[in-house]
Amino acid sequence: MSPQDKLGRNLSMLTDFYELTMSNGYLQNGMKDTVAVFDMFFRRIPDGGGFAIFAGLEQLIEYLSNLSFTEEDIGYLRSKNCFCEEFLDYLLHFKFQCDIWAMKEGTPIFPGEPVVVVRGPVIQAQLVETMVLLTINHQSLVATKANRVVRAAQGRSVFEFGSRRAQSYDGAVLGARAAYIGGCDATACVIADRDYGIPAVGTMAHSWVQMFSSEYESFAEYAKLYPDNCTLLVDTYNVLSSGIPNAIKCFNEVLLPMGYRPKGVRIDSGDIAYLSKKARKMLDEAGFDYVNIVASNSLDEYIIRDLLIQGAKIDLFGVGENLITSKSDPVFGGVYKLAAVQKGEEYLPKIKISESIEKITTPGFKMVYRFFSKETTLAVADLVTLHDEAVDASRPVTIFDPIATWKKKTLQNVEAVELLTPIFRGGELVYRSPELSQIRSYCLDQVDHLWDEVKRFEHPHTYYVDLSHKLWSMKNALLEEISSQNTGAPQINEGTSF
Amino acid sequence: MSPQDKLGRNLSMLTDFYELTMSNGYLQNGMKDTVAVFDMFFRRIPDGGGFAIFAGLEQLIEYLSNLSFTEEDIGYLRSKNCFCEEFLDYLLHFKFQCDIWAMKEGTPIFPGEPVVVVRGPVIQAQLVETMVLLTINHQSLVATKANRVVRAAQGRSVFEFGSRRAQSYDGAVLGARAAYIGGCDATACVIADRDYGIPAVGTMAHSWVQMFSSEYESFAEYAKLYPDNCTLLVDTYNVLSSGIPNAIKCFNEVLLPMGYRPKGVRIDSGDIAYLSKKARKMLDEAGFDYVNIVASNSLDEYIIRDLLIQGAKIDLFGVGENLITSKSDPVFGGVYKLAAVQKGEEYLPKIKISESIEKITTPGFKMVYRFFSKETTLAVADLVTLHDEAVDASRPVTIFDPIATWKKKTLQNVEAVELLTPIFRGGELVYRSPELSQIRSYCLDQVDHLWDEVKRFEHPHTYYVDLSHKLWSMKNALLEEISSQNTGAPQINEGTSF
Repeated sequence: MSPQDKLGRNLSMLTDFYELTMSNGYLQNGMKDTVAVFDMFFRRIPDGGGFAIFAGLEQLIEYLSNLSFTEEDIGYLRSKNCFCEEFLDYLLHFKFQCDIWAMKEGTPIFPGEPVVVVRGPVIQAQLVETMVLLTINHQSLVATKANRVVRAAQGRSVFEFGSRRAQSYDGAVLGARAAYIGGCDATACVIADRDYGIPAVGTMAHSWVQMFSSEYESFAEYAKLYPDNCTLLVDTYNVLSSGIPNAIKCFNEVLLPMGYRPKGVRIDSGDIAYLSKKARKMLDEAGFDYVNIVASNSLDEYIIRDLLIQGAKIDLFGVGENLITSKSDPVFGGVYKLAAVQKGEEYLPKIKISESIEKITTPGFKMVYRFFSKETTLAVADLVTLHDEAVDASRPVTIFDPIATWKKKTLQNVEAVELLTPIFRGGELVYRSPELSQIRSYCLDQVDHLWDEVKRFEHPHTYYVDLSHKLWSMKNALLEEISSQNTGAPQINEGTSF
Repeated sequence: MSPQDKLGRNLSMLTDFYELTMSNGYLQNGMKDTVAVFDMFFRRIPDGGGFAIFAGLEQLIEYLSNLSFTEEDIGYLRSKNCFCEEFLDYLLHFKFQCDIWAMKEGTPIFPGEPVVVVRGPVIQAQLVETMVLLTINHQSLVATKANRVVRAAQGRSVFEFGSRRAQSYDGAVLGARAAYIGGCDATACVIADRDYGIPAVGTMAHSWVQMFSSEYESFAEYAKLYPDNCTLLVDTYNVLSSGIPNAIKCFNEVLLPMGYRPKGVRIDSGDIAYLSKKARKMLDEAGFDYVNIVASNSLDEYIIRDLLIQGAKIDLFGVGENLITSKSDPVFGGVYKLAAVQKGEEYLPKIKISESIEKITTPGFKMVYRFFSKETTLAVADLVTLHDEAVDASRPVTIFDPIATWKKKTLQNVEAVELLTPIFRGGELVYRSPELSQIRSYCLDQVDHLWDEVKRFEHPHTYYVDLSHKLWSMKNALLEEISSQNTGAPQINEGTSF
């Protein structure tokens, strides 16, 4: 039996080798039933933004639901001569037993808070590390970037056009999915429409225009074929002296007589600000003020913003490589860290120390709350607490900066929302992913509930992510304890990270 | 029937929507049997390097060999209400008929030369555009980056450790494949070993160390489990005061008594230059001068070069996100352009003009030759010719810069090698991909045959890629012709590209 994902694959063996050697080691060390808690969190928002968008949960669920190993996999692993038979047998009869909590897809997320929490036998919780990170890192990266681009477009449509420059097949397909969650309206990628219902759109390439004896002929033939969806690519020869005049002629002589209204023109090169303004004027004067101008040349959020500042007349943006790879910052640096180990009824907190304060992990089995102002409905702060800690928002809540502890803020008239939702309980799926369009709406709605100051592209306000007093105290007690055990050996440069 | 790739997928529907609307249009316009020639080429080498590495051909072959559409695909397309039944029937009974030439995987490639040439019915040659670009762009990107990192390591091993930060699943798996071609010795990614035979390696994560009551205990237990492959992660608490002393103790008290030699220590944080030198000294003094030091913290070719300049004592580099995503330049900008259309026995050359000279395409059905000096065995220049043009290297060959035509060079005592190899003939596969390890060896060997000046990381010498006189004349005649047809309308800014 080979369980498969949406594209027909079994990805159980997509894991770092050390996850397997460690899991094998835990088994052999009698830790088969030792329960550990791991957090996935991230430390830095791509592009220096004020928030990221959580995405990829549906694919993570698919992977975890299908996690199993074939006889062939076991044979391959056996050939490595480093796994014991008991472990190989464990894998062959693998049954996922973990509990998982995660943010809902489309949720704005912030550094330092757990976005996925995995609790279960360490042998299993360790094993899934690579795929948890790979899945969530990629889609969160692209959703975050897409949301920036969409916000730059100020209500104009953004189409995802990047398949050909994506980092391989899933990069294209699941990238299109993440871009849609982040707010794109459509994609060029057909399989993303077939499998995920993301509207696929497209016009023509320069090669279409070149295949005909003249630009006009290529337009006329296209218009006859697709009269109800006619967008013409006008920059193969010369936008203003050839493309736009030929498009207008085609609209007048082919489309209107057929009883159809033209849809748009696409400009894919040249100075889009200048050309779009001139083109708009020509189209308007010809009576085509309703025809959209589509721009699609190496766009990103910064260029779109500048184009609009310069008064470019663009109705639709097609965004390619800069979106699908998040080119300006192509890595979402989520990490997966041990937070606690169960001992009897208790959770023994685990901390990873570092000379750089930001890299010290927050120990313990945790929950995350988001406070929304009842007055403005905007999100004001997130609070990371112990998992079973009650938060009573009916009374004023005082939060404080976990490093500069004298910085305090008292929240009144707020609503507290639990952000981590149960996804698996004892290995059983207890969550149903919403439709993709619902995830997208939820994302856009949640972003609307952020302060504008957090949404600035450069130097946004840092959103508060604070620790509950209980959690902060535990973390500090642990740090004190470790510090008192310190040998005191001089450590020049230790902990400086690149 | 649903043909599948190595991971069990049918990717035929992974295409831009406009490939389908154009193909449908060609069919309806009576161009079903019109033969076109398309070139894939690129314009800019990532990271400002002197060359790129061609990779991804094996996956492209897999895709083209399996290209076909299921009843479900056809049903989905029919629901779009824009494809004619004749086209849907054509897809349902699709039979690939194109000829394809391509560079061999692992070949150093340069801007402006065709790296894949597709000749066949335009309806088919157009259809495969997205996957040709997506497949080759991704793997060439990663192979190029990997080769830079490997060269920076100056003979030391480089391991690919980036799965968790890759841009989705294929980004990880096929990225590992491309990294191996570029010269990496191993990967952390298990599935890349299972499916592509790339050696998978791994040690332990910080969580392993944290799961035990002491660092020493975690080392000792690991050593007992994996005595013949024991590399210990020494930076969980403090490299010099704890990690290295505990590792030495473990080597002495556990491994040596078992009759095994320790293999290495891994440092994953802190100032690697400083720590590695200190660690080396401590290990040497303890009699472990043969124990490798592995470094793995946000490395790339620049940091590796600087570490080695500073005398860091590192034997092995584990490189993650910066390699697997080519973080510093994460897009390989290959394009796919119409070059010619067959008319009777002739090829009508097609050119895409642009105000910026570098963006003007080279028309025609072409071949690429590489000249190697018989004296030094180094590559001295590439020559792009018409496809059937004979190149006689037994006599002096004069080449000239296609833009600064007065810059000439006469090559003597050279050997001319055809770089474009037939892959498909009339849709039939006529090429067999070498073993991956052979591709890797070929790549490293070919890079050895480049001038050092071309291999510099910054401002490398621009390798000559010239046009044959015949091809150059044809291109210029076409440009003259188009220029004489120009309406002469003023075109401020046109062609300025972002």
